[in-house]
Amino acid sequence: MIKVTLVGTGTVSDHLSQAFSNINSVRVIQILSSRNIVLTASLDQETDVYIIAVSDDAISSVSQEFIKSQKLVVHTSGSMSISALPARARRGIFYPLQTFSKGRKVDFSTIPICIEAEKLEDLELLKELAKAISNNIHSISSKQRASIHLSAVFVNNFTNHMFQIANRICNKNDVPFEILRPLITETAAKLEELTPFEAQTGPAKRNDHKTIEKHLSRLQNTTSKEVYQTLTKSIQETHGKEL
Amino acid sequence: MIKVTLVGTGTVSDHLSQAFSNINSVRVIQILSSRNIVLTASLDQETDVYIIAVSDDAISSVSQEFIKSQKLVVHTSGSMSISALPARARRGIFYPLQTFSKGRKVDFSTIPICIEAEKLEDLELLKELAKAISNNIHSISSKQRASIHLSAVFVNNFTNHMFQIANRICNKNDVPFEILRPLITETAAKLEELTPFEAQTGPAKRNDHKTIEKHLSRLQNTTSKEVYQTLTKSIQETHGKEL
Repeated sequence: MIKVTLVGTGTVSDHLSQAFSNINSVRVIQILSSRNIVLTASLDQETDVYIIAVSDDAISSVSQEFIKSQKLVVHTSGSMSISALPARARRGIFYPLQTFSKGRKVDFSTIPICIEAEKLEDLELLKELAKAISNNIHSISSKQRASIHLSAVFVNNFTNHMFQIANRICNKNDVPFEILRPLITETAAKLEELTPFEAQTGPAKRNDHKTIEKHLSRLQNTTSKEVYQTLTKSIQETHGKEL
Repeated sequence: MIKVTLVGTGTVSDHLSQAFSNINSVRVIQILSSRNIVLTASLDQETDVYIIAVSDDAISSVSQEFIKSQKLVVHTSGSMSISALPARARRGIFYPLQTFSKGRKVDFSTIPICIEAEKLEDLELLKELAKAISNNIHSISSKQRASIHLSAVFVNNFTNHMFQIANRICNKNDVPFEILRPLITETAAKLEELTPFEAQTGPAKRNDHKTIEKHLSRLQNTTSKEVYQTLTKSIQETHGKEL
């Protein structure tokens, strides 16, 4: 039985607490809001691991409170190094690589959990904890994790913004955005069989100036035009080298 | 029974011919390569509809060959207007809104088929043809279709390029690209419940300068840096207005 204290009451903490609640081998013994840590930290002597699921900027100060416990202290951030945690603590990382939204359920069993620790026994503990909720565990260094987080910005944040621009174009032209859903699903599903390089199609890849000009003239928003131009250039550079 | 002649031997023609082959109410009576049309066009008197599935630039000249037949002539392009077909022909559009790749099977039943025609009876014929392979039929004007095609460039071509940049970052840092798959799938699946505006997360949305700077310093490719900056600006403009 691994006993967990969750620190933070945001979306990641909520989803972890939900995921652990169905598991016999893990018990969440308390959930602390980062505001009342000092008051309650004395109650936690049974904890095996503190999971600090707070905003990046708060990790450093919040984690200070748990040094004395001599228990494992981990954070859940993709972008922060393990050294954001106090050097005197037993420290580690427990990073679930997924996009979480309040109220939307996710299937934890397929979510990659990136773990890192300085001591082998701590890594084993994190592996056990991760295995309790997921079949997709990776031992990842802080440097690798920074690359994963950067990549995640491209495949999630930026991709979602592509959907947002398309949504805006559809609204302006009385077309239901839903008509694009099968295309969006297939764009992601194609990666089961093809690399992104192989899957690339479209006017930029074909160097089809006529269509590119037509599209640019239809875009009224200056920044969307700039997005179109920059991405077209980037696709052409990527594929031009191989022609 | 609708009798179809497919003109063109590329990916769209292949996929349509495949889809129609399982349907009793449709028969593909011939598939013409755009190179031997003149030789064979005399053999096609039974055809009800000519589907011109050739490159955008070839639509106009290839379709000339079928004016005399007085049968319905349609093209399958997202970006070309109905007026790319000869004015003297009975003309229309049969545009399957999906990304097709050689060798990758797609489920046609969910693919939106955008149809357009100048005569009501021709629209009915196209509706019947579309219904034979899909449950997702839309009557769409050439102007609306141009917007859909532009939107499709964002949600497919540009999104796929986001995957490509992420793939490059992963390769350079010895991280398996596969680790991002569940995130990619969930990014698309979220749209079942949330609008892209609601689903947006990440450093650009949060205006998290520290993380943005960290990410920019990790990007070695100048154009990828430019992509990151342009998309960050575009997200901030989209969400800044609502703050």
